[in-house]
Parts: sequence; structure tokens; C-alpha cells
Amino acid sequence: MTKRIKLNAVTVNGPTVSPGLWAHPDDRSREYRDLQYWTDIARTLEAARFDSLFFADMLGLYDVYRASPAPALEQAIQVPINDPTYLIPALAHVTENLGFAVTISTTYEQPYPVARRLSTLDQLTGGRVGWNIVTSNLPSAARLYGHAEEIPASDRYDRAEEFLDVAYKLWETSWEDDAEIVDKAGKRYVDIDKVHDIGHVGTHFSVYGTHTVQPTPQRTPFLFQAGSSERGRQFAATHAEAVFLNTPTAGATKTIIDDIRRRAEDAGRDPASVLFFPKITPITGENDEAASARFSDFLSYSNKEGIFTLLGAWTGLDFSTSDDSRKIAFLERADQRGLVESLRRKQPGARLDVDELANVFAFGTSWLSIGGPEKLADAIEEYIEETGADGFNVASVVQPSTVAEFARHVVPELQRRGRVQTEYQPGTYRQKISGGDARVRADHPAAAVALQAGVSR
Amino acid sequence: MTKRIKLNAVTVNGPTVSPGLWAHPDDRSREYRDLQYWTDIARTLEAARFDSLFFADMLGLYDVYRASPAPALEQAIQVPINDPTYLIPALAHVTENLGFAVTISTTYEQPYPVARRLSTLDQLTGGRVGWNIVTSNLPSAARLYGHAEEIPASDRYDRAEEFLDVAYKLWETSWEDDAEIVDKAGKRYVDIDKVHDIGHVGTHFSVYGTHTVQPTPQRTPFLFQAGSSERGRQFAATHAEAVFLNTPTAGATKTIIDDIRRRAEDAGRDPASVLFFPKITPITGENDEAASARFSDFLSYSNKEGIFTLLGAWTGLDFSTSDDSRKIAFLERADQRGLVESLRRKQPGARLDVDELANVFAFGTSWLSIGGPEKLADAIEEYIEETGADGFNVASVVQPSTVAEFARHVVPELQRRGRVQTEYQPGTYRQKISGGDARVRADHPAAAVALQAGVSR
Repeated sequence: MTKRIKLNAVTVNGPTVSPGLWAHPDDRSREYRDLQYWTDIARTLEAARFDSLFFADMLGLYDVYRASPAPALEQAIQVPINDPTYLIPALAHVTENLGFAVTISTTYEQPYPVARRLSTLDQLTGGRVGWNIVTSNLPSAARLYGHAEEIPASDRYDRAEEFLDVAYKLWETSWEDDAEIVDKAGKRYVDIDKVHDIGHVGTHFSVYGTHTVQPTPQRTPFLFQAGSSERGRQFAATHAEAVFLNTPTAGATKTIIDDIRRRAEDAGRDPASVLFFPKITPITGENDEAASARFSDFLSYSNKEGIFTLLGAWTGLDFSTSDDSRKIAFLERADQRGLVESLRRKQPGARLDVDELANVFAFGTSWLSIGGPEKLADAIEEYIEETGADGFNVASVVQPSTVAEFARHVVPELQRRGRVQTEYQPGTYRQKISGGDARVRADHPAAAVALQAGVSR
Repeated sequence: MTKRIKLNAVTVNGPTVSPGLWAHPDDRSREYRDLQYWTDIARTLEAARFDSLFFADMLGLYDVYRASPAPALEQAIQVPINDPTYLIPALAHVTENLGFAVTISTTYEQPYPVARRLSTLDQLTGGRVGWNIVTSNLPSAARLYGHAEEIPASDRYDRAEEFLDVAYKLWETSWEDDAEIVDKAGKRYVDIDKVHDIGHVGTHFSVYGTHTVQPTPQRTPFLFQAGSSERGRQFAATHAEAVFLNTPTAGATKTIIDDIRRRAEDAGRDPASVLFFPKITPITGENDEAASARFSDFLSYSNKEGIFTLLGAWTGLDFSTSDDSRKIAFLERADQRGLVESLRRKQPGARLDVDELANVFAFGTSWLSIGGPEKLADAIEEYIEETGADGFNVASVVQPSTVAEFARHVVPELQRRGRVQTEYQPGTYRQKISGGDARVRADHPAAAVALQAGVSR
């Protein structure tokens, strides 16, 4: 039996989704301040039976390239960027099944208010919320939050571990399922014996009291993570129910998936229960020729300064100054042998051909797939087969056209092949996307927290 | 010319609006987890031309009465309570003119993320957001946020002052109005010379960087405050564009209004520009008899434990134990001479008649007004005349019936008298409710921050 391929659309709550493409006539990203723009997108995704819409988020400005935030600002590369969590209630109101995953950092805030926000969203959406847990890696965000510099990564992960422990206690142990009794005769709304103070005392947090939100459909929202460092993979293997990947090749995708699944197994979890979503940027049309023409058209709008701003943020390399050995290492990871060779061949003192580099990474460092319905469906099936991934994060070149065209041309072909769903499963987001229960699996650490507390849930 | 009387409805994002009334057959508060329940309320308010819906909020549990959170939990007194900010995007989607005011504390979070949330809401609602600034006074909230005990009030106000200074800088000075150029020919989305790092260094906060949200319709959301202490009044006189009052009598209302207006004038502001909204709990019907019957019916559901939980939170007095002199002082402030007399007459050792006390405060400590359309309209006009208030915060006994009945019976009578609006004014919430500009007035401290920064806005 072939497994179902799951689909998320990935976006940001800002005016541009791909460097320079804000100038393309089909791009409507600038309408991000208008709810109607978003409700249209959500309806398109639900009609195509996408599992979810995933909002990335940034808490500061990218400033590695040219050691300045100016290129990010000038090209609107993930800035301005509005808080994406506030789109969810409005989009939930116009949809019935679409899930909403959203990035929230554990680094700068207290666990209680974050848990409360996610609980509120889970309740308002009827259990359709996912949380992409990030630890942040932007010094500019740290400075906006009052820190002189970014907190070191290992400290951020230590904090994230305890942050989740507190959140699990609030979500899974504070209110038992039958605490709300609404006993009109006995004049008791709540059975106070079934509401508990979490009494958390730890290294980073001390949190006393009961959660202010009663149990929500999922309790713990469906958990995503996207870390690729050693510590990030271990964190994902421990906590993530699904992992977003931004990997340059199918080989790199498979390596990470195998590694995290092995770690998950070591942690006592069913490795198959951790879902993986590498990013794909599809450029499609009625046939291969139309897709190629679309690609050429898009490429003519792409913007080098914007591309290097993104590459700088993702790699930590300032392509305006950094030395060739680090560039070569990055290009080797990205499987860009041609660029590596040209870099090695160039005369001492000559620069890497930035135009060529910019063309290669015009639409990101992950999988760019160009073709008509059959070609893309073939490629997608092959990628899934080769990597063990469970689906894709579909990224856009222009919004909403990229996703709309994927939904129009590629989704029906994948549906004909029986590879993507034609109807949603009932239940919460966790049930729909994982096929499991409404609540976390018994082998997940959130369930262990509940078990240890001995509360009925 | 008589001034227009402005109307807000006040509520919480939780299952009960009045102690014990959750058991009343008309009360649907328990549906608070359902967006449809809220969209119905918002549509009712907009049809009746209410200015706004105001969400109070609590970050912890009330635990003064019986020195325990148990009574609050058992009667669901402002717990469970979901984050109210997430209702706003969905309610904005189904309305065009209704404003949304929401309580957010300055005590536990950093100014940047709070400013970003409010900016996002202002943008998604087309400028229909108000912020009720509170400094919190709940030790239980402090403990959920990782503090051993509540921060002293004077420290909270010092922090709030600086918090606002940072927020004003982010909202008013970081992005000039014409920073977004979207120059397709020149390939520049933003004019980087018109985006500024706020570079704030202070006692409580250091915040470097640019705001991540570009200018919103109001920039600074319309600002409410509700402090009644000496420091709270001074804070309101400095920053508030409107003040919520929870005062027991018209006399007490007038005293506070006169005091804050005098302080505002001393601070260089137009005292008339500060709007005042005392709370009214209306019980009405087709005529006075129907209203009286409704009141008796409601009273039979009221719950003493719940009432004392609220009284405890509002007064700091535990009515199960505190001494009579403090009770008398509270009752005198509430103008309850009969209760004061009975307390003074009682035998040593005897307790205050708690049943009588509970009946008097069954629906809060502020103005309870019972009657048919004409009686209530008369009383409302008289109260406005006597106090100098600008409108009311309409509180509910049962939700949504109380507001729906007020809209059905009393609003049309006030409209006939030309005292409440029959159509909305164009523009942002600030324009609609204050009759002023979209942005803060020139005599407001947020405008001074902008002026000092010398940015174009």
C-alpha cells in the first residue's frame, strides 16, 4: 500500500514570498494586510484538500548579508512581517478542515502565555492548530526583546526543553477531562478536585498555578520542529510529531530523516510516527512547456540582493565578503558541483560568479521542481520513495498563484494516482494529518508528563 | 447641543459573565469556545451601532475570598478564560465598523511583542483596535509568569510608563508613512532611509531595532485605561484617550472624571478629549414591569460564593474573615448606608447579613439600572448629565440576552432622542469614537515621541 502524500502550504504574514517577485504582476503578497486575501488562500487550499497552511515567522530582521538589515528592508525579505497567529481565527471561521501550523519561539517569552495562546487557538479552531517550535537564531530579534546579543544555541535548547515541560504540564495535567461538570442543581460549574496546580520549579522557569484555559480538543497542539543541527535533531526526535526540512537534495533529506527516526526510536518512540515535510517550490502549468516558460518569466523578476539576504540568513555566510572555502562548503552541501568547480577554477582574487549563484538559488535552497502535471507528480512520487518523507511544504514563488496552480494542475493528477486525499479525515488536525488520536500518542513525552501526574485525561 | 452617548459592550472570553447566572436558561456564555457565538454577538452590536466590544482579561485566578482559588473555579468566575485577542480577527471579518478594545498587561511581557500584536490587529481590522492598558494586580498571575510574588504597584506603573514609551517609538517613529514605495522600475520595495532603529535604552527595557510591522491605520491603537488609584489616575491622565470606570455611584464617577480631567489639563492635554465610560448593568424589557420581573428572575440564580469572589478581587477584602471596619469602609464607598447601619447595629460577634450583601452586589458594584425603555433612557441621560461621562460600558447579566435586550429596547429610545448614533462615522476606531483623526492627537505623549524623533508621519 502506498502511503498518502501530505501537503502543507508555507507562507509568511508579509508582503513578499520570493526575492524580487513582489514586482511580478501575478504576485498579490502585498495584500497581506487584508483578511480577504487570506480567506481566499485558505479556501483554495481547503478545496484542494491540503492538510494545512503553515506560517513561518521572524521576530527580527535578516542582517548577515552586507552586515546590514538594509537589503532585507529594501527587498522586503521577511520584513515587514505581522504576527501570523492572528490570521488563524479568521481563517478557521471560513474553513472546516484545513489545519494551521504556526511558528512561535521558546526563547524570549514565558511558557504560560504562549501555552495560553496556543490553547485559545486550539479551542477556537476546534483542534486545528499546529505549533512549529523554534528556538530563534536572530541577533536582531534578541535586541528587540531586550537582550544585548543572541542567547547561545545550547542555552536556547535547554530553555526550550524546560519550556515544553511546563507547557505539557499546563496542557495535559492541569484540568482533567471531566472537570467541567455544569451541575445546575448542585450549583457547581467546575469540580475543583479535578483542576490542579502544576507547581513547576526548574532551572529556567518557576510556574505555579492552574492553566487558565480548560482542555482543548488536542490539549497539546500538533507539534512541528525544523532544527537541523545536532541538538536540533535530537530535540525533534524527542518532541516533534512532524519535522519541516529545508534541504537542498533528496539525499540530504533522506540523511536527516533516517537520523531523526533513529534518534526517535532510541527515545522510545515509533519512528514512523514522526512525519517529515521537505520543502518543494513547484513551478507548473498545463504542460512542461508552460511550466518552463513560467520559470523563465519568474527568473527575470528574481532579485540578487534579496536572494543573498536569504542565503545569508540560512547559511550564516555573507556572500558579499566571506571567503571561498566557506562558500565551497555550502555549495557542496547544496550539491552544486558546477558552481564548486567554477569557484575552484577561478583566478586568485576573482569573485564567484554571483549571477550564476543567484540564478541557482533564485527560489530558495530546497527542491525547485518545474514541469507539467505528470512530470511533477512523477518527481514527487519518486522523491517520497527515495527519502521516506511523508509529504511536502509547498512554497510559493508568487502568491497565491503558485499554490493555486499547483492545486489546479498537480493535485488532481496526484489524486488520480491515489496519492493525495480527496476528502478530509474527521477529527482534529492531529487525527487528520497523522491518522492517530486527537491527543498525543502514548510514546510522546507530553503523555509521559500526564502519566506521571496521574490525572485523568 | 447634547453630546452623543457612546456605547461599549464589556465581556470576557470565558463561560460566565455574572456569578451563578451560568445556570440561567437564557445564558449562552458557555458557548465561548465557539466562534459562531461571538460572531452573533458582534453582529448584534454592530446592528445596534455600538461603538465597540471590550474584552476584559485575567491572567490568573481570583483567590482573595476564602484565601483560595476554589470559589473562583467552582463558580467559573473569570476562569477558565481564553486569550481574548484571538477573537478580534474573526469578529472583524464579520463586521465593518465595530471597534474592539482588549486588555493587555504591561507587567509581564516585553513591549516589542505586545506592540507587534496590537499592530497586527490594527492592520487586520483596518484600524478598529483599542488597547486597555493594565498593570495587573493578581499575585496568581505573577506566579504563572514565574515571579515569586506580585511586583509592587509603583514598580508596575514605572514599568508601564517606559513600556508605553517603547511602544510609542515602535508605532510612531520606526516607519515613516511613505517608507513603502513599491518601486517596480527601481526594484525597491522600501525606501530604507525612511525606516529607523528606535534605539531605546532605559531602566526596564533596552530595545534596539526597527518595528517589524509597517504603519497601521491608527499607528498607536486607541488607548484605554481603568486605574483608579492615585498613580492609576495620573497614568490615565497622561496616556488614556478613554477611561473605563467601575464606580458604585454617579457621585463617585463624577469625582474621578473631574480629577482625571484636571490632571490631563495639567499635563497639557485637552481635558474634554479624555472620554469616560462608567459601567452600567442594564436589566430591561418591554416595560418597567417586565424589567422588574426579569430582575427577580435573575436574582434567584445569583450565587453568593461567586459574588464574594468578585468582591474579594475588586476590594482586596475577604468577606469570609475580614474585620468589620474594612467592610464598613467599602460599603460607605459603595454608598450602601443601609448595610453600613445594619453592620453597626449588629451584636458583637454577629456576622454581617451576607445574604443582603450578596443581593445588593449580585450584579457587580457599579450601576445596576432596571426598567423599561423610557425609564432607562431617562436614567442614562441623567447620569451623563450629572457626571460628565461620555458613554457606558454595558455589562451583561446573561450573555447575549442582556446586550440584545438593551439593543432592542433601550437603544431605539436613545436613538429617537438623538442621543446615540444611528450610523457610524467613517474612518478608524479613533475617528469613530472620538471624532478626531486616525492618529493620536497632537497633545498626546505618543505624538510628542514622534515629534522628538523628527520623523514624517
